[in-house]
Amino acid sequence: MAGNNFRKVQFPRETKGFINIDPLQTGGKLTEDARKALIEWGDGYSICDFCTTGRLDEIKKPPVYDFVHEQLPKFLDCDIARVTNGAREAKFAVIHSLARSGGWVVMDSNAHYSSYVAAERAGLNVALVPNTGYPDFKITVEKFAETLEETRRKGDIVLALITYPDGNYGNIPDVRKIAEICSDYDVPVLVNGAYAVGRMPVSLKDMKADFIVGSGHKSMAASGPIGVLGMREEWGEIVLRKSKKYRNKEIEMLGCTARGATIVTLMASFPHVRERVKRWNDEVEKARYFAGKMEELGIKQLGDKPHNHDLMFFHAENLYEISKKVKKGRFFLYRELKSRKIHGIKPGLTRYFKLSIYGLSYEEVDYVINAFAEILEKYS
Amino acid sequence: MAGNNFRKVQFPRETKGFINIDPLQTGGKLTEDARKALIEWGDGYSICDFCTTGRLDEIKKPPVYDFVHEQLPKFLDCDIARVTNGAREAKFAVIHSLARSGGWVVMDSNAHYSSYVAAERAGLNVALVPNTGYPDFKITVEKFAETLEETRRKGDIVLALITYPDGNYGNIPDVRKIAEICSDYDVPVLVNGAYAVGRMPVSLKDMKADFIVGSGHKSMAASGPIGVLGMREEWGEIVLRKSKKYRNKEIEMLGCTARGATIVTLMASFPHVRERVKRWNDEVEKARYFAGKMEELGIKQLGDKPHNHDLMFFHAENLYEISKKVKKGRFFLYRELKSRKIHGIKPGLTRYFKLSIYGLSYEEVDYVINAFAEILEKYS
Repeated sequence: MAGNNFRKVQFPRETKGFINIDPLQTGGKLTEDARKALIEWGDGYSICDFCTTGRLDEIKKPPVYDFVHEQLPKFLDCDIARVTNGAREAKFAVIHSLARSGGWVVMDSNAHYSSYVAAERAGLNVALVPNTGYPDFKITVEKFAETLEETRRKGDIVLALITYPDGNYGNIPDVRKIAEICSDYDVPVLVNGAYAVGRMPVSLKDMKADFIVGSGHKSMAASGPIGVLGMREEWGEIVLRKSKKYRNKEIEMLGCTARGATIVTLMASFPHVRERVKRWNDEVEKARYFAGKMEELGIKQLGDKPHNHDLMFFHAENLYEISKKVKKGRFFLYRELKSRKIHGIKPGLTRYFKLSIYGLSYEEVDYVINAFAEILEKYS
Repeated sequence: MAGNNFRKVQFPRETKGFINIDPLQTGGKLTEDARKALIEWGDGYSICDFCTTGRLDEIKKPPVYDFVHEQLPKFLDCDIARVTNGAREAKFAVIHSLARSGGWVVMDSNAHYSSYVAAERAGLNVALVPNTGYPDFKITVEKFAETLEETRRKGDIVLALITYPDGNYGNIPDVRKIAEICSDYDVPVLVNGAYAVGRMPVSLKDMKADFIVGSGHKSMAASGPIGVLGMREEWGEIVLRKSKKYRNKEIEMLGCTARGATIVTLMASFPHVRERVKRWNDEVEKARYFAGKMEELGIKQLGDKPHNHDLMFFHAENLYEISKKVKKGRFFLYRELKSRKIHGIKPGLTRYFKLSIYGLSYEEVDYVINAFAEILEKYS
């Protein structure tokens, strides 16, 4: 009986003790304080212990109210903030609130799939801003302006979405200039900062954007799924509109969102996260160091160059050539890295892959570089 | 600076070691296996370690695939199941998929606020089936039929929603008969089983309903927020429709949902949860025992009688009378219970309150009853 099999599963996490270079995971590793909070607040609905108004963001103990209404708006440099079930859920809440029948969302073609799907879920059309293609894959201000102009002729643009940076190349577009152009078209701008908020300093106001979205599990050292949403004052009435019957419940939030250990871990990590973004320049320098060493091995770094983010995309013609010859085929790289306790490049990839070295020490970075050198050497 | 204050917060959970009778929490307490899994899988996006297809429900290690596609449909006695960010998010996914402009949702007036808000979010009208009022607050088959008939004259009914049981009185409506009537009107039925799934045996097919929703953090011993959604085969194409561009991404799920420690705790607790529902009759018997003892103290149990669920609503005229005389006023009950290490009745309530004794031993149940007896004695 299948039921009996299931009973025995112990769920060990096999990548424990590994160096993890999966871009999805390097910014989501819990801090020690978050780990303690996780254990303390693990039970189901524990956060609701001292909820008196029926709203998550108004809980005083633990200090959710202070976090959501004071700390987070300061951190994002916005007027109003909320915690959501994730970055994608935050994007959907905004898109769904702004949706008009037959409307369009203009977004960069480097966008995460969930940006596209969120627009589809809201019944909207999507116009994609093309990138510059190999090897840079940049989203330029000019192309964004062109796509806005073309789309305006087709119909009603309800929102522009910019991915900052994108999750493939780690490219940082000129969001401020793009937002200025959107403003000329009277189109509000949402910045998907799932790989920015919690890693690098961000300011919604400097960006001249309307909304910013972040990911707790991707970049804020929180246990997932959890996200954050910041916006300008004027959008509060629309995106945070309230139920007609339940006057204190925000419709797009379905009342309360991240109602569990997720928000407590986000809050417990927050003081550390706020500090770590101040060291962002060191992370960029380390990424450039790593990219340089990879290039010395004949593995090309694509995207912005010099690079401005820890998430990097590589083109390894040499590893691809090896994969065509060796027994294990395209899985050889995954296995070789696994045997060296390095996790995070998808099984089967050799020619093109992304990785992140966020939070690694230089010793660990060198260990990863040496692993690639050894693997190339071994099969040469 | 507010920032510096935040840094010092340690997030102790003050109700540790308390007997918790908050209905929101009694079914969400983690099992030991879930607690271990929580610690092991706490990091951000840990569940994505071995994801190869880009879909949470297809991960083989840990066995999400087996859980979502084999265990869960069996447990709910339905054809297709999914894991969601919570019961409310599951309800919204269904309502949003079925929504037609100007349409109506017919739901019982004992429904959780999030059912109402989910319909509002989808832009639908809501018709509420009235309950029978004090002291039973029942949702009868007749009233449901009446409301369906009245609403049909007003417009297009897209869905009926039944709360099974509701979160105030713990009343169990005759869902099968209601579903049969809905079927005569060709209206699909969603059962909100947030307080049923994981506590008591349920069968979507026996209920003759179309959808069932459960809550991991409320009733399945999981760390929140997480929910489950079960449905009949024929609804898969509509509710789980896929993105046009990203062919394996389900639009209403925004791709993946409970992508973190939440799903691992749900899975780790599942074998225990599956066993505990077999002991449901003992829980009902214990609830009736508790209600009887409370009535002996002059505290009246409202709702179904004899009661059929651990969630109970009480009317305590005697405690209310005390609250009018004592110094601490209406907070005296909360404080008296707190001093006895009992948590879960909302601060300020004395006359009407709900509680749940799910999972408590008879020793603990007697301790709670004695606490009420002592408090009444003290102020008499």
